[in-house]
Amino acid sequence: MAVQRYVHGYRPQENQRLHDQAGALVDLLHHDTAYPSGSAVLEVGCGVGAQTITLAKRSPDARFTSIDVSAESIAEARRRIRGAGLTNVDFLRADVYALPFAAASFDHVFVCFVLEHLPRPADALAHLKALVRPGGTITVIEGDHGSAYFHPDSAAARAAIHCLIELQVAAGGNGLIGRQVYPLLVNSGFKNVRVTPRVVYVDSSRPDLVDGFTRRTFTAMVEGIREPAIAAGLLDPQRFDQGIRDLHRTTDADGVFSYTFFKGVGTKDTLREITDGQ
Amino acid sequence: MAVQRYVHGYRPQENQRLHDQAGALVDLLHHDTAYPSGSAVLEVGCGVGAQTITLAKRSPDARFTSIDVSAESIAEARRRIRGAGLTNVDFLRADVYALPFAAASFDHVFVCFVLEHLPRPADALAHLKALVRPGGTITVIEGDHGSAYFHPDSAAARAAIHCLIELQVAAGGNGLIGRQVYPLLVNSGFKNVRVTPRVVYVDSSRPDLVDGFTRRTFTAMVEGIREPAIAAGLLDPQRFDQGIRDLHRTTDADGVFSYTFFKGVGTKDTLREITDGQ
Repeated sequence: MAVQRYVHGYRPQENQRLHDQAGALVDLLHHDTAYPSGSAVLEVGCGVGAQTITLAKRSPDARFTSIDVSAESIAEARRRIRGAGLTNVDFLRADVYALPFAAASFDHVFVCFVLEHLPRPADALAHLKALVRPGGTITVIEGDHGSAYFHPDSAAARAAIHCLIELQVAAGGNGLIGRQVYPLLVNSGFKNVRVTPRVVYVDSSRPDLVDGFTRRTFTAMVEGIREPAIAAGLLDPQRFDQGIRDLHRTTDADGVFSYTFFKGVGTKDTLREITDGQ
Repeated sequence: MAVQRYVHGYRPQENQRLHDQAGALVDLLHHDTAYPSGSAVLEVGCGVGAQTITLAKRSPDARFTSIDVSAESIAEARRRIRGAGLTNVDFLRADVYALPFAAASFDHVFVCFVLEHLPRPADALAHLKALVRPGGTITVIEGDHGSAYFHPDSAAARAAIHCLIELQVAAGGNGLIGRQVYPLLVNSGFKNVRVTPRVVYVDSSRPDLVDGFTRRTFTAMVEGIREPAIAAGLLDPQRFDQGIRDLHRTTDADGVFSYTFFKGVGTKDTLREITDGQ
């Protein structure tokens, strides 16, 4: 994946958005992820470390190797992890399709908001499967932009969101990948695959999510692709801006916003199971 | 609501569909609904009793009054409840806008899959609020057809689902009402309103839901409006049938289907709170 193809870009306000998102979603996405003492965990596509902090805090006696294709993102992630006083993470710049690790060298692999940006997610999963020891697990978390709906409904808002989906396709990614986590893991040969939806349901009784998710995560994400969407002729500026206003409208007292992430966990066959299966 | 405006109709196979749906969803929708011994509960729009059986079983010492606008549906519901050996339900034919009960005569009101069919859901909630004693609760459960998405994605399937949404609008209802449960309850004056999404996430690791929900509940529901949708010119027969095939395609081993219901609970002010508020 070429760095410049990352649809959300690398601006400072985007880095802040990623951390806002992570804060709003920590419990929803990560409450059931904890790795045993001494286990070696590979985090793929750590970006600016938005999830790394949560992982490293929740599993203080596991050892994380967090990789990303962007050296700048890794520098930022390293700063944040050190700033949080965490010492159980090693960072490395690497490409997910050409990882410098021996086969079966990790107990667990963690992949969050990465497959959506990859042209060949199935290939990436095959590479990652080779790095997991038999009996180890993979955890995949992805959003699905087609899962977003809201009240009041708005065709302009839906059109603006669709720009993001189209730009992601043009960049070789897939903004609707959340719903495909199950078949991707199964087709990659992982066993006991269990996928669960994680709904971010937001109404005005949940002001933290109104601000932290609807406004500063999702709407900010769509707003972030205004220039490329207009430059690509996907939507005219007036219509795009109406869509953004309508997304903000869903943060009013009578507004509602819903978005779903999908979390999947699969296990690599143990040697015994592999033998039995032959 | 005139009987003939009920979008799903009253055919025997539709009654079976409603019971299949109820069976597949009992835990998801109703696990957190139980009424105290001796409480008087009004069930609005009981239909053929698909939810009534669950309610009456789960709260054996509460007394239910279950009403519906259709005498035929009530006859069927009564048969089913008696067949299940339950004796804590009284049935009554009545219109939700003109209910023959004194103010504050119920401890709790339960409304499931009803508001979506009503032209004036806010008026209905105002009527129902008058029937609840101060401190009592209302529970509202509604689906949202705009929450359906699936893999493989299909424009034809989305178009067929959209026919259902349009027919429901034409009949005076609203198939996207799930996302509006929160503002409807708040605007009706209920307090402490809490809405939670209930996602029916289906992949092939959950064969009961593949059959009980994707196939026999949702796809059957869309299939059920084939004739009126085509008669209304909303979609040509070939396209509609392609949409149905594509919905069935989501039940294959690599298919995924997701749909979300919304459950809201609100409390009527106690007399003290009402006084304090003045």
